[in-house]
Amino acid sequence: MTKKIAIAIDAMGGDNSPEKTIKGIYLFLKKNIKNDDFVLNIFGDEKKIMHELSKYKISNKNLKIIHTESIVSDGETPLTAVKNSKNTSMWNCIQSQIKGESDISLSAGNTGVLLVISRMILKMMNEVSKPALAGLWPNQNGMNVVLDLGANIECDEKNLIDFAELGSALFKSLFPASKPFVSLLNVGSEEIKGTDILKKTYKKLNELSSDKNFIFKGYIEGNKIMEGNTNIIVTDGFTGNVALKTAEGTAKFLTDNLKKSLTQNLFTKISLLFSYFSLKRFKDKLDPRKYNGAIFLGLNGPVVKSHGGTDALGFYYSIDLCYKIIKGNLMQQIKNNLNHLKGDKE
Amino acid sequence: MTKKIAIAIDAMGGDNSPEKTIKGIYLFLKKNIKNDDFVLNIFGDEKKIMHELSKYKISNKNLKIIHTESIVSDGETPLTAVKNSKNTSMWNCIQSQIKGESDISLSAGNTGVLLVISRMILKMMNEVSKPALAGLWPNQNGMNVVLDLGANIECDEKNLIDFAELGSALFKSLFPASKPFVSLLNVGSEEIKGTDILKKTYKKLNELSSDKNFIFKGYIEGNKIMEGNTNIIVTDGFTGNVALKTAEGTAKFLTDNLKKSLTQNLFTKISLLFSYFSLKRFKDKLDPRKYNGAIFLGLNGPVVKSHGGTDALGFYYSIDLCYKIIKGNLMQQIKNNLNHLKGDKE
Repeated sequence: MTKKIAIAIDAMGGDNSPEKTIKGIYLFLKKNIKNDDFVLNIFGDEKKIMHELSKYKISNKNLKIIHTESIVSDGETPLTAVKNSKNTSMWNCIQSQIKGESDISLSAGNTGVLLVISRMILKMMNEVSKPALAGLWPNQNGMNVVLDLGANIECDEKNLIDFAELGSALFKSLFPASKPFVSLLNVGSEEIKGTDILKKTYKKLNELSSDKNFIFKGYIEGNKIMEGNTNIIVTDGFTGNVALKTAEGTAKFLTDNLKKSLTQNLFTKISLLFSYFSLKRFKDKLDPRKYNGAIFLGLNGPVVKSHGGTDALGFYYSIDLCYKIIKGNLMQQIKNNLNHLKGDKE
Repeated sequence: MTKKIAIAIDAMGGDNSPEKTIKGIYLFLKKNIKNDDFVLNIFGDEKKIMHELSKYKISNKNLKIIHTESIVSDGETPLTAVKNSKNTSMWNCIQSQIKGESDISLSAGNTGVLLVISRMILKMMNEVSKPALAGLWPNQNGMNVVLDLGANIECDEKNLIDFAELGSALFKSLFPASKPFVSLLNVGSEEIKGTDILKKTYKKLNELSSDKNFIFKGYIEGNKIMEGNTNIIVTDGFTGNVALKTAEGTAKFLTDNLKKSLTQNLFTKISLLFSYFSLKRFKDKLDPRKYNGAIFLGLNGPVVKSHGGTDALGFYYSIDLCYKIIKGNLMQQIKNNLNHLKGDKE
């Protein structure tokens, strides 16, 4: 028997938890009713968790509930986190990775605290200069991996090259058998554009490209992120965070205005009768819940941050993401990629 | 008689010029048929311009055509621009500002060249540390001014404070009698977030705020840019450029997918009969041509860059922008704002 995929889930983090987290777990179990290759280690208030679980007709054979007394409060800052977060559901998730009981952790709780305690408990891989927060971003042909999304406000060329390697490993764990394309976010596509750090990174990525683990496609501009011609988009945490949030804001602005237009009078409401299924498919395809889950890479174990405000379906997608990442051997992929980098330095 | 507003127009820059630029001029004249407070100085190939003008029944009384032999080629780079661009239609536009014949220049030609020769001919204002490229960005309540959009890849706190002053002046020239809100783009809204440069800028903007020319609203995140709670968004040219292009790419991705959904079968096509006018209003409201025109600020005279790929209507909007900016006394507003800054330094 091969080892089961073990996912540590913080049942208490985010809005409406554990109600939504347990419903998300239920959705995952329902979808994977024929799978027996995983176990979910659920951390939190046992009584509340059992109460939520009792709402669903599901087998508990792949579940393990680990009671924890406390949870990370919303008001906690990264500065006070270490002192106040010991033995919370979030803390014990990460701790279970160190003990070898879980392969990955998932939480919808306080982002800053999650980054700090993950880093403290799991520690950074020796080969990595900085860990990164990676996200999935829809494009015309599927999805991109974009990193860093905000773990590191300032990055040098060594960090950015690490991000290219970490992002490629993540992409390959999600989409095996593909050799991913890597692009570097910049303000123009010509070689002379951008900061000195970007120019140095460009040169190094070109050297590492093609016959190795990824193919470097050069610079990419913001308006090309969603065109689907690349797989991994590398940037510093400041730019990545602004770009991601700007895209979210733009999407919200457009869909809000569209909704207003399509419900403003009787005629438009009639039109909805005819376009209902097509608009539903449009909405489903772009549903942000499908891309829920930012992956913290570069530590001795992966940690996934679910959006705090997502619902049960969004939380389901981030459990599914954890499952796929481990099934795709993320940590081994990362080690391979970093070996490659190490070999290159010699 | 008060002095007329004089706009220098490069008729030759951008795709399909002078056809589109002259049609844009025609649209402007038609809208302003009762106005006699402006003159358009049109630079370019006189024969071609006259040919295009002959297509429309318009009075030429507010037009002046200045023949120029050459145009800035697409292949020109900022490095070769000065040598090769002398006496082009673009060059002579800017030159006419120095001669006192025009108040503002407009071109849809090569951006890099326009920035370089504008800066060379007009020179930076003594009080300004760096010029900035500002753009108009739609939001729920109207529009924002966002700057810098790419003139300066790296900026320090002095530059960012100048941008706040320049952006406020621009906003007041477009929307007189309002005291604008200024926000600083960052990865979080808490004071402790961001780089040292941002923290210093935050502190200084707070000092300059409220009883002066603008009200500082603190940090803003990318997802709030379009919510309409601020008027001027200040950022460095790298971040601004990535944010603007990411928003453009996201909007294109969404509208392309929506179009596909609404034309995919007979039912959705019927639905379009009922929603046609509402969708048209939706489209019109968000038409990027309405926001065409980036304004180069901080030189001894303003220069507007139209999108090269826009059409006649888009070019019309950028002529209208030039007209409004000068009518709103942009240069005087800038001087007032910079005096304020100067007073503060003493």
